[in-house]
Formats: sequence, C-alpha cells, structure tokens
Amino acid sequence: MSQYVVTFGEMLIRLLPPGRLRFSQADSLDMFFGGAESNLAVSLGQWGLPVRYVTKLPDHWVGDGAIRYLQQYGVCTRHIARGGPRMGLYFMERGASTLRSPKVVYDRSGSSFAAARTDDFDWKEALADANWLHVTGITPAVGQLTSLQEAIKEAKRRHIPISLDLNYRAALWSREEADRVMRPLIPDADTIIGLDQDLIQGMGEQLLPNQPYAKRAEAIRRGLQQMEQRYGTGKVYLSTLRNPISAARNQLSGYSLQNGEIRESALYDFEIVDRVGAGDAFAAGYIYAKQQGMEPQPCIEFAVAAAAMKHSIEGDANQVSVNEIQDFMAGERYGVVKR
Amino acid sequence: MSQYVVTFGEMLIRLLPPGRLRFSQADSLDMFFGGAESNLAVSLGQWGLPVRYVTKLPDHWVGDGAIRYLQQYGVCTRHIARGGPRMGLYFMERGASTLRSPKVVYDRSGSSFAAARTDDFDWKEALADANWLHVTGITPAVGQLTSLQEAIKEAKRRHIPISLDLNYRAALWSREEADRVMRPLIPDADTIIGLDQDLIQGMGEQLLPNQPYAKRAEAIRRGLQQMEQRYGTGKVYLSTLRNPISAARNQLSGYSLQNGEIRESALYDFEIVDRVGAGDAFAAGYIYAKQQGMEPQPCIEFAVAAAAMKHSIEGDANQVSVNEIQDFMAGERYGVVKR
Amino acid sequence: MSQYVVTFGEMLIRLLPPGRLRFSQADSLDMFFGGAESNLAVSLGQWGLPVRYVTKLPDHWVGDGAIRYLQQYGVCTRHIARGGPRMGLYFMERGASTLRSPKVVYDRSGSSFAAARTDDFDWKEALADANWLHVTGITPAVGQLTSLQEAIKEAKRRHIPISLDLNYRAALWSREEADRVMRPLIPDADTIIGLDQDLIQGMGEQLLPNQPYAKRAEAIRRGLQQMEQRYGTGKVYLSTLRNPISAARNQLSGYSLQNGEIRESALYDFEIVDRVGAGDAFAAGYIYAKQQGMEPQPCIEFAVAAAAMKHSIEGDANQVSVNEIQDFMAGERYGVVKR
Amino acid sequence: MSQYVVTFGEMLIRLLPPGRLRFSQADSLDMFFGGAESNLAVSLGQWGLPVRYVTKLPDHWVGDGAIRYLQQYGVCTRHIARGGPRMGLYFMERGASTLRSPKVVYDRSGSSFAAARTDDFDWKEALADANWLHVTGITPAVGQLTSLQEAIKEAKRRHIPISLDLNYRAALWSREEADRVMRPLIPDADTIIGLDQDLIQGMGEQLLPNQPYAKRAEAIRRGLQQMEQRYGTGKVYLSTLRNPISAARNQLSGYSLQNGEIRESALYDFEIVDRVGAGDAFAAGYIYAKQQGMEPQPCIEFAVAAAAMKHSIEGDANQVSVNEIQDFMAGERYGVVKR
Amino acid sequence: MSQYVVTFGEMLIRLLPPGRLRFSQADSLDMFFGGAESNLAVSLGQWGLPVRYVTKLPDHWVGDGAIRYLQQYGVCTRHIARGGPRMGLYFMERGASTLRSPKVVYDRSGSSFAAARTDDFDWKEALADANWLHVTGITPAVGQLTSLQEAIKEAKRRHIPISLDLNYRAALWSREEADRVMRPLIPDADTIIGLDQDLIQGMGEQLLPNQPYAKRAEAIRRGLQQMEQRYGTGKVYLSTLRNPISAARNQLSGYSLQNGEIRESALYDFEIVDRVGAGDAFAAGYIYAKQQGMEPQPCIEFAVAAAAMKHSIEGDANQVSVNEIQDFMAGERYGVVKR
Amino acid sequence: MSQYVVTFGEMLIRLLPPGRLRFSQADSLDMFFGGAESNLAVSLGQWGLPVRYVTKLPDHWVGDGAIRYLQQYGVCTRHIARGGPRMGLYFMERGASTLRSPKVVYDRSGSSFAAARTDDFDWKEALADANWLHVTGITPAVGQLTSLQEAIKEAKRRHIPISLDLNYRAALWSREEADRVMRPLIPDADTIIGLDQDLIQGMGEQLLPNQPYAKRAEAIRRGLQQMEQRYGTGKVYLSTLRNPISAARNQLSGYSLQNGEIRESALYDFEIVDRVGAGDAFAAGYIYAKQQGMEPQPCIEFAVAAAAMKHSIEGDANQVSVNEIQDFMAGERYGVVKR
Repeated sequence: MSQYVVTFGEMLIRLLPPGRLRFSQADSLDMFFGGAESNLAVSLGQWGLPVRYVTKLPDHWVGDGAIRYLQQYGVCTRHIARGGPRMGLYFMERGASTLRSPKVVYDRSGSSFAAARTDDFDWKEALADANWLHVTGITPAVGQLTSLQEAIKEAKRRHIPISLDLNYRAALWSREEADRVMRPLIPDADTIIGLDQDLIQGMGEQLLPNQPYAKRAEAIRRGLQQMEQRYGTGKVYLSTLRNPISAARNQLSGYSLQNGEIRESALYDFEIVDRVGAGDAFAAGYIYAKQQGMEPQPCIEFAVAAAAMKHSIEGDANQVSVNEIQDFMAGERYGVVKR
Repeated sequence: MSQYVVTFGEMLIRLLPPGRLRFSQADSLDMFFGGAESNLAVSLGQWGLPVRYVTKLPDHWVGDGAIRYLQQYGVCTRHIARGGPRMGLYFMERGASTLRSPKVVYDRSGSSFAAARTDDFDWKEALADANWLHVTGITPAVGQLTSLQEAIKEAKRRHIPISLDLNYRAALWSREEADRVMRPLIPDADTIIGLDQDLIQGMGEQLLPNQPYAKRAEAIRRGLQQMEQRYGTGKVYLSTLRNPISAARNQLSGYSLQNGEIRESALYDFEIVDRVGAGDAFAAGYIYAKQQGMEPQPCIEFAVAAAAMKHSIEGDANQVSVNEIQDFMAGERYGVVKR
Repeated sequence: MSQYVVTFGEMLIRLLPPGRLRFSQADSLDMFFGGAESNLAVSLGQWGLPVRYVTKLPDHWVGDGAIRYLQQYGVCTRHIARGGPRMGLYFMERGASTLRSPKVVYDRSGSSFAAARTDDFDWKEALADANWLHVTGITPAVGQLTSLQEAIKEAKRRHIPISLDLNYRAALWSREEADRVMRPLIPDADTIIGLDQDLIQGMGEQLLPNQPYAKRAEAIRRGLQQMEQRYGTGKVYLSTLRNPISAARNQLSGYSLQNGEIRESALYDFEIVDRVGAGDAFAAGYIYAKQQGMEPQPCIEFAVAAAAMKHSIEGDANQVSVNEIQDFMAGERYGVVKR
Repeated sequence: MSQYVVTFGEMLIRLLPPGRLRFSQADSLDMFFGGAESNLAVSLGQWGLPVRYVTKLPDHWVGDGAIRYLQQYGVCTRHIARGGPRMGLYFMERGASTLRSPKVVYDRSGSSFAAARTDDFDWKEALADANWLHVTGITPAVGQLTSLQEAIKEAKRRHIPISLDLNYRAALWSREEADRVMRPLIPDADTIIGLDQDLIQGMGEQLLPNQPYAKRAEAIRRGLQQMEQRYGTGKVYLSTLRNPISAARNQLSGYSLQNGEIRESALYDFEIVDRVGAGDAFAAGYIYAKQQGMEPQPCIEFAVAAAAMKHSIEGDANQVSVNEIQDFMAGERYGVVKR
Repeated sequence: MSQYVVTFGEMLIRLLPPGRLRFSQADSLDMFFGGAESNLAVSLGQWGLPVRYVTKLPDHWVGDGAIRYLQQYGVCTRHIARGGPRMGLYFMERGASTLRSPKVVYDRSGSSFAAARTDDFDWKEALADANWLHVTGITPAVGQLTSLQEAIKEAKRRHIPISLDLNYRAALWSREEADRVMRPLIPDADTIIGLDQDLIQGMGEQLLPNQPYAKRAEAIRRGLQQMEQRYGTGKVYLSTLRNPISAARNQLSGYSLQNGEIRESALYDFEIVDRVGAGDAFAAGYIYAKQQGMEPQPCIEFAVAAAAMKHSIEGDANQVSVNEIQDFMAGERYGVVKR
Repeated sequence: MSQYVVTFGEMLIRLLPPGRLRFSQADSLDMFFGGAESNLAVSLGQWGLPVRYVTKLPDHWVGDGAIRYLQQYGVCTRHIARGGPRMGLYFMERGASTLRSPKVVYDRSGSSFAAARTDDFDWKEALADANWLHVTGITPAVGQLTSLQEAIKEAKRRHIPISLDLNYRAALWSREEADRVMRPLIPDADTIIGLDQDLIQGMGEQLLPNQPYAKRAEAIRRGLQQMEQRYGTGKVYLSTLRNPISAARNQLSGYSLQNGEIRESALYDFEIVDRVGAGDAFAAGYIYAKQQGMEPQPCIEFAVAAAAMKHSIEGDANQVSVNEIQDFMAGERYGVVKR
C-alpha cells in the first residue's frame, strides 16, 4: 500500500499582469495556483511520489478549479475540507532587471483555510497511510496553530518523520510573534528548513543581501551550528543561500547540517523567469531525495538543483522532471537544442 | 462652479475566464472594475456631468489602479478614503445561450469599504458642491448603514435631491433584513429605483421571469402604485422590466410613476454581450436626463435606452456616448457600417 | 473498494485557429485533448465516479501533458501504456452560422495507440476492480480490434457490463468494413449506442438531416426496434437525434429501447459553442445515471441533458457538473445571472 | 502565357479593438489589410486566377508587409510603385447585434497612393498581358482620376474588358461630385457594378434599408433598367441587395441585367462575422465566374454566394475556396461537422 | 487654487507588433499613446502635480480614447482643442539585443495638431493658473512655431518659468533648420534640456555612441559650458548621457549646469523593457523635483533616476511612483520579492 | 528569363507553448512553418532571388496554409506535389537561460513527403530554368534518397551547381547510416556545408561544446582540410562554429575553404530569441552572396551575419533584409532607436 507524504497549509491564487505591464495598465491577469505546501505537493506528485495535500477550500467552482489543478499532478485531494468564505489570493507584478523589484500585495485574510475549525481536518484518517509530514511557519501565521499542533501530535504518535519549513513572512506577523510560536514547534520536527527566528535576528546584519556572499555563507554555517546546539544533533538542518545579482539574475546554493557535519551544494548562477516557489521546490527536492534513500550530500545537491531549475518555470510550483534535474546536476550543456 | 452628482458605495474587481471557458479551464482572467455606484459614476463622467465617487480603497497599487480607472472617465476621486485590507472582488463565468446561465461567486467580505469607519468619509466636504446624491441598497448590505445615513442626513440638510436604488442582492442579506433596513431610508429619497422589498414579497409570484411578460408588466405597474400609496406622491418611482428570452437575448423596458402618472418606455429586444451593470446604466441614464432638464417621458426613455445599450458593452460600466443613445432612441438602423 | 468504469481507446490532440479565423490566417492554434473514450472518462471523473482510461501514449512530454489532463478530472491513468511514435491529432476550423460548416482534418495515422501491441494492455489487471466497460467503434477502425476483443473477453469472464458506442467515422473505414467488424461485437454488449451499420444503410434516406425531423425520429424508433429484433431484448439500445438548424443552432433529443419499450427524452434547442464530444457526453451521462441506479426514463433524460449542455463548453470533454445538469433538466430559467 | 486580371486602387490597413471592446478600452488592435481592389485581387489570387494589383505603397517595412500579404494569395505585385509618405488606414469598432452598429473612422488622407504621380504607373507594361481590368469609384475619389483614365485608355486600346464598381463612399466626396466624375467613365466599362449616382438620388427613398425588401428589390430592378437605357445594352449591369435585419444578421441577393434580361440570384440569410469586403467578394465572384466561361445566371449566383460567404470571414478579403462556394450554392447542410 | 504645469505638443499613437515579431509577421499591434509632452504630463499627473496638456485631437472616438488615457493619470484636458483630420502615429518594432535595433516609421504628417490654427489655443485661459510651461523642439518641427511663440509670450507676460527640451528629431527637419528655428527660442527659457544644435554639430564626433564614455561625458560638460557662455548664467542647462551597451542594456547618467557649477548624477546600468520616453521622464523628473523645492543636486538625481526607471515600463509614459524612484535612488536591493 | 535557385525537402509545422510555459501548462500553441530547405527558400525569396521549393504537401487546407506561407515570401510553389497523408510536425519548448535547454519532439513519420513516390517530382520541369540546386542530408534521412539522386542527376546533366548541407539529425538515423548514404553524394556537390560524418566521428572530442573555443576552431579548420583532401579542391567547403555560452546567449563564426585557402568570418556574440533555422540562414546567405557575385571572403561574412541575425527572429525562417544584414556587418551601433 502506498505511503503518502502529507502536507498541510493554505492554497492561494496568484494574479499578475501579463509580461512587464504594471497592474494599472492591465485588463487581464495571468492566474496561477500557489501556496507553499501546495507547491511542494505538486512537485512531489509529478515526480511520482504519493502525496496528499490537506487544506480547506470554498465549496464552489473556484475551489473546484484549485482541486483540479492539484489532481493534474497526481496529488491526493481526498482530505481537503470544503466550505468557508473564500480562497486567499495575491496580486503580483513581475519586476524588471535592476530597475524594478517584483512586488506582491497579499489578499489572504478571512480565507476558508484561516477560518477553518480544527475538526475540519481528521488527522487520524489523513495520516493513516503517511510516511512523512511537511508543514511550514505560514500555517500558524494565518491562524491555524492548533490544527498544526494536532497534525504534529498525530504524526508523532505514529512515528512519522516531520519536516518544518520556518518560512517567515513579514506580511503575516512580527518576528517576535513568529519567534514565540515557532520555537516550541521545532523540537518535534526531524528536518528543519531555514534558520530559526532569533538566530536571524542575532545575525541579521550578516545575512542582508548587500553583505558579501562569503560573509553571508559564513553566517548561514554559523546559524545552522547554533540551531544544532540549541535543538540537538538528531535532526537535519537545511538552508539555501540566495545571491540576488539583479531581479533577473540570481545565484543559489544550499547547506545542510546533520550530526555536526555541514555540507554545501554546488552554486548555480541563472536568469529568472519566475522566482516564486523556489524555496518550496527546495523542500520538495530534499524530501524526494530522502525518500529515494539518497545520501546526505546528494540530498542537498538534488534539493538545490530542483530549486534552481524552478526559476525557469512560470507559476508557483516546480514543473521539471527528475530526469531534467539529474541532467542539470550532471552539468548538461544548455543552449543546445535537444532534437 | 460645478455642481456634482455624488455617489457612495463599494467598488469591486470582476475576474472572468476568457470567452466561454469555464473557470477551471482558464489560466488568465479578464479584469474589469465594477460596483453599482462606480458604474453609475463612470456613466455620468463620460457623459460630461461633474460626478464624484466616495468610497474606501486599500492604499496600494491595486487601489491605485481602481482610482485611475475612475479618473479615465472624469470621475472626481478626491474624496476616496485610502486604507484597509482589500478590495472586494467577484469571479464570473459568462453563460452560453439557453444552456448555461452566467454564474457569479462573490468574494467581497472584509473589504476596505466594509471595514471603513464613519469618519473615513467627510460628508460636509464631499457634498459641499453637490446637487444630487445617489445611493443603493448594497451599501447597508455590506455594513455601511451608518455612513449611508450620515450622507443622507447631510444631503437633506443641504436640500440635495437623493436617489435610492433598492438593488437587493440575495448573496448579501435576507429579504427580511433588507426590508427592515431599507424601508426607513425610502422616505428621505426623492427618486426610488426598484420596488420595495415587501412589495416584491407580496407580488413575487407575478414578477417571476417564467410568468408572461404582460402579467409581469402589470405587476410592476401595481407595485409602483402601491409604493406611491405608501411613500407619497412627491417622489419619482422607477423600475425596469427585463424579459430574459435566453442568456444571450433579452428584452427590456422601463416604467416611471410620478404624481400618479405611470409612463412606459419603448421595449428593446437585443442580444447580450455583457449584462452586468445594466441597472446602473439605467439609474445613470435617468439622473443624466433629469439633470439635463428633460421631461418625465424622455427621462424614462433615455434611461432605458442607456440600459439597453449597456448590454453591448464588455465590462461593468456603460461605454456609450449621449449621441449614440440618442441615435439609438431615434431608431437608427443598425447593421449598416457607418463609414 | 472502488469499482471502476473502464474505457479503452485512442486519445487525440485537437488544434484549431482562434475564433473564426481560417487555418491559413492563424499563427497560433488553440489546443484541446480529446478522443471519444477520453471524453467519456473525463465526464465521469469530474462527476465523481471512479473511472479508468486505458490507452497508449508516447513516452515524452507531449504524452505527459495528456496524462496530466486526464488526472485533472480524477481519471485513473495507471494502466496507460507508454511508448510508440506519436499521438494522433486533428485540425479543426470552427464554422460560422449558416455560411461555413466546421471542418476537420484528421492526422491520426501511425499513432502510438494504433501501433500498440496487444500485450501493451493487461486486461486482467485493468479490469480487476471494474464494474463497467465502455468501448467504441473507433478502436477497431484504427486497428485495435484484437485488443478490443481481449478486453471484451475479459469483461465477459468477470460478468462486467459492457457498453458499445458504434460511432461510425467515415474518415477511418468504409461502411461495409465497419459493418463486417462491428456486427460480431454487438452480441457481447449490454448497452448499444447508435444504430448498427446495415440498418443505417437500409434507412439512410430517412436519417438524412434534410428530412423532416418527425420522419427522422420515426426512422430512429424503427431502427432501434430492428436492432432489438436482431440482437435480442436483454440489451439497452440508445440513440440521439440531432436537428441541425444551422452550424450555430441545433436541437437534440434522445431515445432508448429496453425490453420492447421506447422512451423519448425532452427536446432541447440551443446555440452551439463547440459541438465536438456531444455524443461522448451522452454516453457518459447514460452510464452515470445507470450507475446511480436511475430508472430508464431518467437515464435517457440525464444523458440527453448532459449531451445538450456539452454544446456550451469549449473543448472535447463535457465540463458541467451533475448539479448543473439537474438544474437544467428542472427547467431553470437561463439568462438570469446567478448572484 | 498567363493572362492577368489587373486591378488598380488604394490599399488600406484596418485596425480594430479585439472582440466587442470599444476603442478606448483596447490596448491592442487587430490588424487586417484591405482596400476594395486589394480584396478583389486576393479573392481571385487564391482561386487560382492570374491577377495583378497596381497601387503605390511606401518604401519601408509597413509597405513590405502589405506586399507580403498580397503575395500570400498569389497576387502579382511586380507593378506596385514604392515611395510616398504613408499607407491609408481606418479604425473600426465591431458592432453588437441590434444595439451598436459597426463604426469606422477613416485616416487615409495624404497616402502614398493619393499622392502618386501618373508616371508612377506604367500601364503599357502593367496591361501588356492582361485580359481584364477592374476599377472602382474609390480611386477617383481619393484623387487618382487621371491615372485611372490612363489605365482605362490603355485597356481600351488593347480591347481588354473593363469592370467598374461605382462604390460610392460618402466620407470621400459628395454625391454631386461623384456623379460628375463617375458618369463619363461608365461608357468605357463593359461591366458596371452598382447603380449610378443620379439614379440613386432619384430613387433614394425606395432604396433605404427601412423600406420593405420587395419595394427595394423593385427599385434595384428599375435602376438597372434605367442604366441600360442610358448607357446601352452592350454592357452587364450588376447590383446586390442587402437586407440588414440587424448588425449581426443580414440577407443578401443579387441582380444582373444583360441585353434587357434581369436575372436574380438566390437569397441568403446569415449571421455576420465581418461584413467588410462583401461587395468586393461579389465583384471578384462575378469576374471569376465570367473568366471560367459561366453563363449569366451561374455568374450572378456564384458572385452572390461568394459575397454571402465573405460574411463568415474575419478580415477584409474573402477566404473561401471555389469548392466551398460551390458546395454552399449546392445547398450543403451546414451545422454538420465535416470529418 | 492649484497652480498647473502646462505643456503643449502633439500626441501620437504608437503601434507595435507583439513581442519580438516583425511587422509583417503580426496580425495584431500593441497600442500605446505617446508624444513627448504627453509623456511628461502623464508622469507629473500620476505624481500628483496639477498638470495641463494643451494639444489638438480629432473630434471622434480615436481622439476620445486619447483624452481618456490622459485623464486616467489626472492630466487636465480642458484646453485640448478638438477637430482636424487625424492623430499622428508611429509604427515600431522592438529590437533584439545586439542583433536588431528598434525601428520606427513615423506617420504623423497631416495631423490635427500640425494642421491646427493658432486660435485653436487660448493661452490666456490655458496659462491663467499656471506656474510652469514646458515645451519641446518637436512642436516647431511639426509646424506649430507660431502657436509655440504665442504660448511663450503669454508665459513671459505672466512671469511663468519656461522649460525647453530641444529634442531634435532628424525625421522631422534638418539640423540647420532646427538650428535656425530653435536658437531664438532659447533666451526665453529658464531651463534648457539638451545641447543646442550647433554645439552638437561642433562636437558631434565626441558625442557619437562609439566614442568612449568618458570622452562623451567630457563633451557633454563642455557643451553645457558653451551654452551657458552663449545664453547666460541665469538659466539651468540639463543633459543626459546614454551609454548604449546593446539594444537590451544601457547605462544612463545626467548633468546639470547652473550658475557655473556642473553637477553629475549617479550612473545607472540596466536592461531595457522599452526605452521610448526616457527623455520625457527625465524632464518630468526635473520639473517635479524643482516644484518640490529640491536643491540642484537632488533635482538632477531624481530626474535621472526617473528616466532610468522608465526603461522598465512598457509604453511611452513613465509609470513609476515617487516612492519607487526614491527607493531606487536609496539603493534598494532589487531582485528581492517585496512581500 | 529568371533563373531559379531550386531546393527540395520536407516542410514541417512547429508547435510551441507561448513564452516560457511548458507544454503541459499550455492551452494554445504558437505555430510556425519550417523545414531546412523551406527556411532557405524563404530567405532567398524575401531577398528577391527567384527561388523554387519542391516538396509534397497534403491536399487539404493545412497544406494550403503551408503554400500561402511560402508564397508570402515570393517562393515559387508551382512544382509542389499535393497529396498523401500528412505534414510532418514538431513540438518544441523554448528553453530558459542556463536552466532549461530548448526541447524538441519530432512527429514527422509517415508524412506526405516521406511517402512521396519518385514520379511525384518532375525534375526536368523543375530544373528547366534553374541555376542552382540546394539539398540537405535530411531528405535521404526521411526516405527520399532516390528522389534526391534523381534531382542531382538532372542538375548534373544541366551543369547546374549543387550545394549540399550535410545537416545530420540524430533523431532520424544513426551516424553510421548517415555516413554510408551521404558520402557518395558529396562528389556531385560543388558546395558542401558541414563536415562529413566520419570526420566528425574522428574529431568528435575536439568539437564538443565543452571544449575551449580555440580548440574547436582548430578542429573545424582541420576538418575542412581533410574534406578537401578527400573530395578534391574544386569545391567550396563551409562550416559554422557555434559557442553556446548559455541557452540565451551564443557566439557564432564561420569558415570556408576553397582552393586550399581557409577564410574565417567575424565572430558575433548575441542573445537568442529563437535559434531554429540559423544553419539554414547561413546556407541561404552563402548562396545569395555567391549569386550576387561576391568574393569568397564577403561570401562567408554575409552568410555568418545572416545566420547571426536569424537568432533575433521568431520562427524558423530568417526575416531580415539584405540592407539590415549589410548594416549589421558594417558594425551599426545597436541599441539606438532608428527614428
């Protein structure tokens, strides 16, 4: 019987003007479905891993559209609750090179997910055939801390490994509040993605994008080590490091710390089609690699390669195959038409 | 100095799949700005009447886009409050002939307008140079009864004529609640559009679209007369009558009652490009005609012709000129290319 | 455990110029996935029925796209074989009212499905959890008679009911050849859709669209009766009757014959958005209704209503919900915006 | 050696907002090439008749685009002069059913064609291998009377038959001026399309679209007879009669008068995709039929069928094949997908 | 009472093929409104400065569309004359990196503006509440020297500061003619943008883009100094310096000279979305900064930053807010999604 | 009488998702016509050279569309055979910078061209007025070796110069098979483009894109010399060298060897819009230059410049004029708007 990776969080609709137009110039909007956990589920689903997404969506045709999107990639939608007022959404403008950064306006308050009751989700059922639970810091930030705790509790009861992407969003809560809520969740997780909030506060200066890359890499290494000191060596600590050369070109690498050993991935340099969802592609890549039984170094390599390739994809979720990621890691020469 | 028609209400974004596609088939959405009072303001603005729109919009670039849309048609936006969480919006699917009716999903809860405080609107200022106030039943339905009452109070103080479009929306409140709230507002209005709610309840059967047209016309006439009996002869009572032959073809006529005399407009028969906003085009047409000093019969004729022509326009607001309406009323032969 | 409706046939890509453009005016083509059995599977999948589609698709990203399309609607794609040279496709021009009929150019020769070997399909597995098998006359016409026979044989062995849509396509084979191949298949089917070929030859004159509707209806009735005489009373015989008023407007009704009793559905009159797939929507509607345990008259009513509503949908497969079909059958007044 | 139909006139660019949008709602414009004689040339070219188009186009890439458009349909462009300031163009809004008529704004003044010198055109060369010359009343209206006269003179010298489409355009000149200029041209023509201007003035009332169809048909017949009386029996006189039921639906028939005998075509009733260029399709149809050696009745039938079918085509020129016109005339049942 | 920046000049329609297509590959054209002074007005209008645009537009719906475009950004259109034959327009092809430069074909001859009479513009009225007049060298080049002189005379009479953008366009007139006409206008201006024509002739070699940047910067400095020597120290002399690395990437800086002191702005390096209108954005930025009472150095900095950011905007006019420009000048790190 | 360049090969339809979308995200496909010899014919046709394209296309409206495409550029289509089952096509995804290479799925088996009989082509007629024959290695690879041999034989008989582009496609045949078939064709050709297959095998390592550019240039030089040693000095041997910096940026230069002398062109560095057809643009450029009587060095310069500029063009065939290529070779500064 299949063993599912289960993930839980809010799904969003992204709306953005075509091409480089500004919102007030547009009379149509491109539409993509997103949300951190949904993006992860879609990655895993298209890579052939049994994956289940738990959320709450309104019970009308907008919600139906979201479900069809998920099913398209083979994501199990059986445990999605239906009802409530609305789907969260966000408006975005694509940026332009060094001149305009991409801009986001969130419109997610009062969503069906945020307004869900804890009994909308039956964790005994949803986790019955699971072998991994992935959650993020966005879920408590939008008011579903209790449901999240129940999911974690049930997963612990069943000895299901848990990954937690800290995923701090300044638009949703303050660093202090995030700190207070997220810290108690970390000890239950087996894999932690991101640096915990007080670390970030403590080493914020060093992590700023206008610091030299090497200095920031050093800060990431120290941050991971401090997390291991604080939360113990039984866990895997993961982080990416992004070097934003311009809105159109970035560099990306990744770090893992496990049992005291820090591993660093290859560094990729690329132009960006759409950078939303790269972090989710990273988490998905790591879970996939882990589920395939890869060693720690290949795990971080696969995760970072998946995250890098996401930047070539329009839309919130990664749309590259495992083969494409492997070719990419193998250094395939791009720019040659494959025919 | 210009004298403004002032109107007050919530602005909405409409999002709809291109052409005849269903929502779940679409990957972009056509976007229009709407909202009953905004539509009326745009009609009047493009016809050259000084018009001011009072609302509250979020203080970011989505709200800016709404303001630019209004300005395009010459609408005064100086008294629009800025701030709050979001703009209301609605998703719509265009219907298809006799097979699929157009479908709407509202997503307007928690909007900046609904969450506005009464002191967001300075009626002394906004009505200082006004000569007409137009309001609708949608505004109390989304929670702005007090602000509406203050606007009406200030208008009364300044002897500014008031028009009230009852505009019942089942998605927003029950008929009973609408009844309870709207009835006390009617005595303050000079022009009432629509039949008041208990009348509708009383004569509901006769007004249903599957009743014969003549029977429904009779019900409208009786309804207007009952309103005059209840609320007095000093007012103008207006109503349209729509005969929905199919989703693609309708007939439309209009009725006014003033000092005991019922007037009926010409009946138009037409195919529909987009029927959203036809009622607002009717109200705008009436106010425009009235402001131009037209007699009662031309007033109702102009209003219905404007409403009919709206059905040829993509988007929520009417985009036809006064000249085009006059040619249309004069029976211009359509189907001849004008060159 | 779920019981699947299983269907087997070739999947196609439809390519057509935007709007009313002719092919040589276009520089992009709208794309839809289709194929009779795929359309049926998508209908059933979105209506919530467990449904499995068996076919063969090339093992590259064009084939992957087809699979994602199916999954979107919940269709089980586990038994789709992968490999072979190509997907069949067809070019189409939308017609225009009474002036231009829609035109199709098929390009389906040498497809992966047509070139499949019988051992590409494991019927023991694919039918293990099935409770219905649906097949059409297109499958032998493209060269998969043996595979079809094996599927039927396995279904008979498991006492799974079989529906057979005769679905004659003049572009694929002659009436004589169709006749020779299809006749021996009919006795194994429990539900037969369409009139068998010699009947059509015998009563061809009466079935031509330029014959009066009543005369054609009479021919359908006689045709069904002759089929029952030939193939026995234990089966259900089904047919639609289309009255093509113009390329843009049709009428549609349906007939069933079961145990000597002919039932006729309501007659629908409608304008057409896209008429491809209406027959498949009819078959899907019938199977759905049957699976829900409906009586014979509601079964034919549901099937015809589903087929009629398909004409409002862009694309090959029906995209209307069970609720919408029921509202439609209940005579809901279309043309009223639902809000 | 091929014998060419040669035509001479101004080419235009048509720009129109997508779909039903009004100009001020659009941020892109659909583009088509047009102009009466260019439309005729494209019809004949795609039907396989050797055809040459003589005009003057600016010597830059906008003019190059026009030339490629013509070549696409096999039109000989060798005698097109290059240079001058600009191409004429026109903006158009598509109408909508009975509510909005299509609207045109011409912007053709100062074009390269209007500004051409008579020696830009070498009629000895251009007519050396011709067997027909087609011209219209638009050419003198835009200021190329002298060039037109030279073309006619050379054609007469070579005994090449001449067709003249009177094609009055109110935007270009007054009826009186048209009258004065066009009348002297008629005696040189062998085929005259349209009623000459004073006739129209004399019987204007009867020709108005709001007169009954039968009365207008009678006026056309009388008009043709008066022309024959005035200009002699050696010529063919042709006219269409359009019955504009709405902007979206028209009826069309045609009349020819030759040697005292009036012939009337079938009457077609159809919905309109784009009615620009229908008259040019009529003229092209007549010339084609004549060149194929058809008898007078088939000639007028083919011409009217071609003109009717043009209404199903987006763009200024007809895009239907001879086969399609013949099937259409043969009463092929439309609404049946051809597959 | 508001004090307006008033500007005067011709408005244009820009038409360009979508994306990288060449004109002859396109069947639709993207449309933007432009014209140097219109672009400046739109910049100022959206930044909240009262601004009036004086021009002449044809009195039909194409002209109406232009007016709505201006109103959208809050530009006062009350003094726009209506009538005349047409709007000027230009066709453009976007270039592609180092391979194809953007190409423009002007089609502006015979426009309503060019054909306007001097009494179409009532400068007493249009400048009654003005505090700045901005004009460019394009206006005399298209034949409106007298109107321009009258505007300047009235502004001088009212002691309104005048800015003059020399804006030489080779397609419109020769350098000698521009020289002869523009020189006498300079003494009346308080702010001069660009180097005057003979200077350019004198130092042409040094200003060519294939000269080293430093050498060209030196030439600009000398040019400004020579202008101050010629025209006096009471004025502000401004110029940008563009370094065209490729069609897709440029560098930009700016220089001002005031009372003998040369100031140089930051140098920006960026990729280009659309470079049309950058010079107008520079002039607008300078006037805005000046009107806000900024010091000389911030004035040139703001102007250049506005001009640089324009390159990220599709369309002729700048669409960035004051806040965005200030963040940009403050060195905000681009490439980070703002959420 | 015109002397034609005649070319012979298969025409293809290219279908690709809009922008950067992946195939499974698309619901429409951009369409271009292509095929190596068709691309060459279109280049020559638009440059004004008489050119004839010989192929076989299906006899329906898809084939008609292909013919119109060719005619648009002045290509003689008189000798195109009509009939057979289908046009070959290929699906393509545009790549994205260093992350995703462009991907192609061919669907060309069973095409009308591949299935053509040798008597579909009448070489006596097709080459009667020819002065050049161009063929490629794709034609034997798709099964038309015999027809190709007949074309070559007839050309030899008439002393028509022959160019042969080796054009190896791994998707169509193995290197060994290509080797065996192509080698015997080389002696009949006067101009050979590409290195013959065993050479490539022999020096494969040096030609790989991950080798340094200089080393690969050296290999090309040696390869050309070995070909001359093998096949003799009377011929011209041509090759390009591409340096794929990324999917979005390449460098390109070219080499010719004639009578023992190797010539090298300028090296161009550019960003890529669409790189399909660059090799065909190179061959076309060489033939054009040769036909214009240019010397060997200008010939290779023109060919490489044409090939480089092709990368700025959407679609399979080059769409740049001779003037544009000459300006480009003259080092025109790109990035300056031409106005």
